[in-house]
Amino acid sequence: MSAPVDLGALVPHLRAVCGDDGVITDAARRRTYESDGITYHAAVPGVVVLPTTAEQVAAVVRLCAERGVPFVPRGSGTGLSAGALPRPDGVLIVTSRMRRILEVDIDAQRAVVEPGVFNLDVTRAAAPHGYYYAPDPSSQQVCSVGGNIAENSGGAHCLKYGFTVNHVLGLEVVTPQGEIVELGGKAADAPGYDLIGAFIGSEGTLGIATKITVRLLRAPEKVSTMLAAFDSMDAGGQAVSAIIGAGMLPAAIEMMDALAIEAAEAAVRCDYPEGAGAVLIVELDGSAHDVDAQFDAVTALCRRAGAFEIRTASDAAERARIWKGRKSAFAAVGRISPAYIVQDGVVPRTALPEVLARIAELSARSGIRVANVFHAGDGNLHPLVLFDDADPGAAERAAEVSGAILDLCVEAGGSITGEHGVGVDKACHMPEMFTPADLETMDRFRRAFDPDGIANPEKLLPTPRLCGERPGVRTQEHPLVASGEAELF
Amino acid sequence: MSAPVDLGALVPHLRAVCGDDGVITDAARRRTYESDGITYHAAVPGVVVLPTTAEQVAAVVRLCAERGVPFVPRGSGTGLSAGALPRPDGVLIVTSRMRRILEVDIDAQRAVVEPGVFNLDVTRAAAPHGYYYAPDPSSQQVCSVGGNIAENSGGAHCLKYGFTVNHVLGLEVVTPQGEIVELGGKAADAPGYDLIGAFIGSEGTLGIATKITVRLLRAPEKVSTMLAAFDSMDAGGQAVSAIIGAGMLPAAIEMMDALAIEAAEAAVRCDYPEGAGAVLIVELDGSAHDVDAQFDAVTALCRRAGAFEIRTASDAAERARIWKGRKSAFAAVGRISPAYIVQDGVVPRTALPEVLARIAELSARSGIRVANVFHAGDGNLHPLVLFDDADPGAAERAAEVSGAILDLCVEAGGSITGEHGVGVDKACHMPEMFTPADLETMDRFRRAFDPDGIANPEKLLPTPRLCGERPGVRTQEHPLVASGEAELF
Repeated sequence: MSAPVDLGALVPHLRAVCGDDGVITDAARRRTYESDGITYHAAVPGVVVLPTTAEQVAAVVRLCAERGVPFVPRGSGTGLSAGALPRPDGVLIVTSRMRRILEVDIDAQRAVVEPGVFNLDVTRAAAPHGYYYAPDPSSQQVCSVGGNIAENSGGAHCLKYGFTVNHVLGLEVVTPQGEIVELGGKAADAPGYDLIGAFIGSEGTLGIATKITVRLLRAPEKVSTMLAAFDSMDAGGQAVSAIIGAGMLPAAIEMMDALAIEAAEAAVRCDYPEGAGAVLIVELDGSAHDVDAQFDAVTALCRRAGAFEIRTASDAAERARIWKGRKSAFAAVGRISPAYIVQDGVVPRTALPEVLARIAELSARSGIRVANVFHAGDGNLHPLVLFDDADPGAAERAAEVSGAILDLCVEAGGSITGEHGVGVDKACHMPEMFTPADLETMDRFRRAFDPDGIANPEKLLPTPRLCGERPGVRTQEHPLVASGEAELF
Repeated sequence: MSAPVDLGALVPHLRAVCGDDGVITDAARRRTYESDGITYHAAVPGVVVLPTTAEQVAAVVRLCAERGVPFVPRGSGTGLSAGALPRPDGVLIVTSRMRRILEVDIDAQRAVVEPGVFNLDVTRAAAPHGYYYAPDPSSQQVCSVGGNIAENSGGAHCLKYGFTVNHVLGLEVVTPQGEIVELGGKAADAPGYDLIGAFIGSEGTLGIATKITVRLLRAPEKVSTMLAAFDSMDAGGQAVSAIIGAGMLPAAIEMMDALAIEAAEAAVRCDYPEGAGAVLIVELDGSAHDVDAQFDAVTALCRRAGAFEIRTASDAAERARIWKGRKSAFAAVGRISPAYIVQDGVVPRTALPEVLARIAELSARSGIRVANVFHAGDGNLHPLVLFDDADPGAAERAAEVSGAILDLCVEAGGSITGEHGVGVDKACHMPEMFTPADLETMDRFRRAFDPDGIANPEKLLPTPRLCGERPGVRTQEHPLVASGEAELF
């Protein structure tokens, strides 16, 4: 890093671009942006801007580029890898005032939106026409489409429908040099390099998406949801293998273990079957005939694997009841533990039983409880590592267990993140998955877009300065409530 | 370009890497590689190598990198944009000896193959387990998976199943600096930049894929194919709009006009309904119940749009008969015209009627016949521009019409290529679709991988030296039979 820049001198220029009310310098207001969904990484941004157009974003970025000032993009601040962690020496560019749905083109089955639009609002705009937007992160009521692009967000239904990258066809992007460029468009395929795929999941290091063209899907004729209770995780896992092995592709297969169920009961009284060692939520969608036929088949496979109770949702209210426990699971863990870490890793589905057994061993050996809530169909684990932050050393032991779980995922041929991204939080784990040549290739790519290193520095790729030390862990009570929400509502 | 390099001095080093029989210097043998599927772009390669392993590919590339020698990758040579056009001053790296299927992992629904494997052989390997590999270019019997990656190949079924990029999960790649790196893997999502998407369709300019992990899909329970005959293209187009508008997603919707039908009849006696101004081939796949229900609906919509005859394939032989005319259409045009140009452009599906009408006007005005064969569902046109190469000036007039068709596609909000790629053939058209800032971004990206510009230079992106002049046109008799096939069979 070169000598610090006088941000104060930048402010009048930022005001000229974004207007007085589009630039925040007041310390108390800046503090509301100090972290995203992972509150144990925190830093007060040097200055916050709230642009309303792509041209304003480009002008702000050019001001930063001219002076070598780093900038950090931020959507709704619900991210879980500290990808939007601000910098005291930089500008935080918040997209919350870019919230227009520009077009819903049902003929072409596309919508065009600004980056600050809430994920669920895309579906709300398409629903009257019988369409929806598929990616559905748990935070979909408040997370932004721009943030989803930065993190390549998934959701419970990405087993069948894929990630954000599978649903975005065109992007208008402000590059780290302040140019506005177009990637892709409404057509299914564009000539030249497909930089959309590379941009999606780039966590703000290649610039800021200012206009987004997404694919809309026809709402399925029927959706059926089932809850199956098993004595053990092993039995539930056998049911998952049997379902996938039979060639079925449910919209979602979610699994929770006894500890996660206990937490959900304590928090939201979801009334799952008593004494369950594991519950499985299976959701099927498609034509009514197919869904009914597959539902019968899934029921039979669950029974054969030892399900002792199977419940079926017959309407939207019952479906919501089944999902309630699952969707509240992260926050619910706060009811059974003063503090916890949400981990996010992937293993090949076939390696699930072994990895879960080894997580249990790890937990027993360390005395640190681990609750498991996960997308079983695609092997995306979300272990919740519980600890008491009043107990000296517990946070460090929990961080160790959490890190060891990632090591297990990598050893099993999986990944250090399924859908939460790398951010600051996991940048130092990247060398566990990639060779120096792999990382050097990524870094060359990054520098092609951002030669001066001002676009969200120190996120995504490891930096020697940071990776010498282990990131700290702080209590995390409400992982999905970002500290900047005051701006949102 | 710097001073020419003495390729002769390179040969002993290449032989040390690939063995004597893996290096071709003989002029007559080199000439068999002078073009790919577009024979009007031709150049004899300086030297040809046939490596058998990734390590050999990397060693060859390093030898090139050390000396600044350009290299051109080539699969089976069936490409239709001169993406594998060799260089007299360079090394042609042919992957035809890397043809092992390394793994078929049915549990994970993945296959791992070498780049020279024929597209159809992936499906052949998966078929006994009830699975298949979805991308199906017309040349699938002989085109290579590595070439499909270079061009992001589609096929008749990409309406429903997408392009190669939607089916590749992991790549081992030799970079232009001779490093072996991994992009992605078996997991659905990988952290870091998703360079797989950018690599797929990069036409050899970012390096050479040496190991490819693809997704296998479960073979559908039922496939039904229908041929509907209409008086006019307009009536056929209305049927297409009605089908898509009803929210159905057939596996394929193909359309041929009267001239294309005439050619197919002359060549393969496909026995399509007499007097048809247009035929539509609609293929549905999925569960038996859904396919049957949709088939009835499609039949009704075709009748309503004016179909005067509808034929249904009741078994594989009848399905093959319906597809026969469509699949032979390109080559068949040789029966009604001494020479022709295959064009490849995309328009938004909703703009199809207008663009087809303007192509007809263009044809009438110029006196150049244009036959239309295309993927109607996704607006991917393949106009065949017919001319007599014995007629002085006809080739130039045909090239002009062909270029004007691309202009129409771009004007309508479409693209200069749907699935054939850019290569040398269309590099000079890129500025019609992209701004200087867009192209500069792509060029920066390219240089990040290939700072010395040795990886398939002058393909994909426009170079000022070449784009001053219009590429020439030569007679093209068998566009799908590459001149290097001697090596293949």
